[in-house]
Amino acid sequence: MIRFKIPRVTVERLSLYLRCVRELEEESIVSSREVARLAGTSDAQVRKDLAYFGEFGTPGRGYRAGELKDHLLKILGLDRVWKVALVGVGSLGKALLAYPGFKKHGFEIKVAFDIDPSKIGKKYRGVEVRGLEKAPEILTQEGIKIGIVAVPTPSAQKVVDKLIEGGVKGILNFAPTRVQVPEGVVLKNVDLTRELESISFFLTEK
Amino acid sequence: MIRFKIPRVTVERLSLYLRCVRELEEESIVSSREVARLAGTSDAQVRKDLAYFGEFGTPGRGYRAGELKDHLLKILGLDRVWKVALVGVGSLGKALLAYPGFKKHGFEIKVAFDIDPSKIGKKYRGVEVRGLEKAPEILTQEGIKIGIVAVPTPSAQKVVDKLIEGGVKGILNFAPTRVQVPEGVVLKNVDLTRELESISFFLTEK
Repeated sequence: MIRFKIPRVTVERLSLYLRCVRELEEESIVSSREVARLAGTSDAQVRKDLAYFGEFGTPGRGYRAGELKDHLLKILGLDRVWKVALVGVGSLGKALLAYPGFKKHGFEIKVAFDIDPSKIGKKYRGVEVRGLEKAPEILTQEGIKIGIVAVPTPSAQKVVDKLIEGGVKGILNFAPTRVQVPEGVVLKNVDLTRELESISFFLTEK
Repeated sequence: MIRFKIPRVTVERLSLYLRCVRELEEESIVSSREVARLAGTSDAQVRKDLAYFGEFGTPGRGYRAGELKDHLLKILGLDRVWKVALVGVGSLGKALLAYPGFKKHGFEIKVAFDIDPSKIGKKYRGVEVRGLEKAPEILTQEGIKIGIVAVPTPSAQKVVDKLIEGGVKGILNFAPTRVQVPEGVVLKNVDLTRELESISFFLTEK
């Protein structure tokens, strides 16, 4: 993994600020204090997070909500549509294909891959399923840089390797296992059960 | 939120160790070094994390995989089945009902709640959907302590309040907003799009 100057938690908060600002009227004026209140943080934190990306807003007056939204979209690289590949069309994969939040926020699943011959060639939610062995070629052709891994643990590393072979630079991994990625590739792991396990731990401890 | 002695990251790593140990033969002997290799951490870290919970294993010999698994299950409060309530039977809620990982790891969705009259009274994946207004009563009756929130942002706080009124002590929130919980209630937020937004940021920065 390469090192980034901006802390990950800052990036996560910027995403959260974006959500909060989206709920406001475009023309309304919003202070860092108001953003902080909506996001559940302090206004000093909001100002500090935004300051990483240069001067913004009118001192003492706050931001116009629409401008702040566009600013955040640009910082986060969301002023464009990202083409995404999904690997694994099981129950989780199908759920992700049905999840409206991705497209709404600029992430469009363009192609899905699987190894099950009964799925290959079919369409789910308008997305065609292709054989996994074709992934490197198709990903390169389509210029897809983001991949979502929704396969069982034993296949996860193999799938990640195929994505990277096809030029993918960012991976969202739902397989409950650690996978290895080379330098320059961003990996985020999501484990739905592990979140529940943390809750279970804290309920048990009491 | 109440303060816990054990760091959250330790708890998350214990979950990961459990995943790794589950992949081994029950009778095999595993060293902290081996667990560390599987989990992508250092053996000092593994020993430190386990040491929070007292002496375990034979010094210099390692752990029997089956015993380590049982030990981790007990620490994490997973040596039992947790009854879980799901709120929101939209596309994400349905996906979570179909997700096999929960039941496999001891989290059983016993009841679902929604406000849509066309869904109330129906069963999805064997789970009955009840009206949200009945939640406090049903949760108390059933002794359900964990709730999953899969509703849109504007309803999230109201839903969380209903869960807490019914005695829920741990909440997994998929709504992309901050919700407030009283002291003594554990809250974990999962935002699938936000994970992709972090990836987008890091791909854009380069």
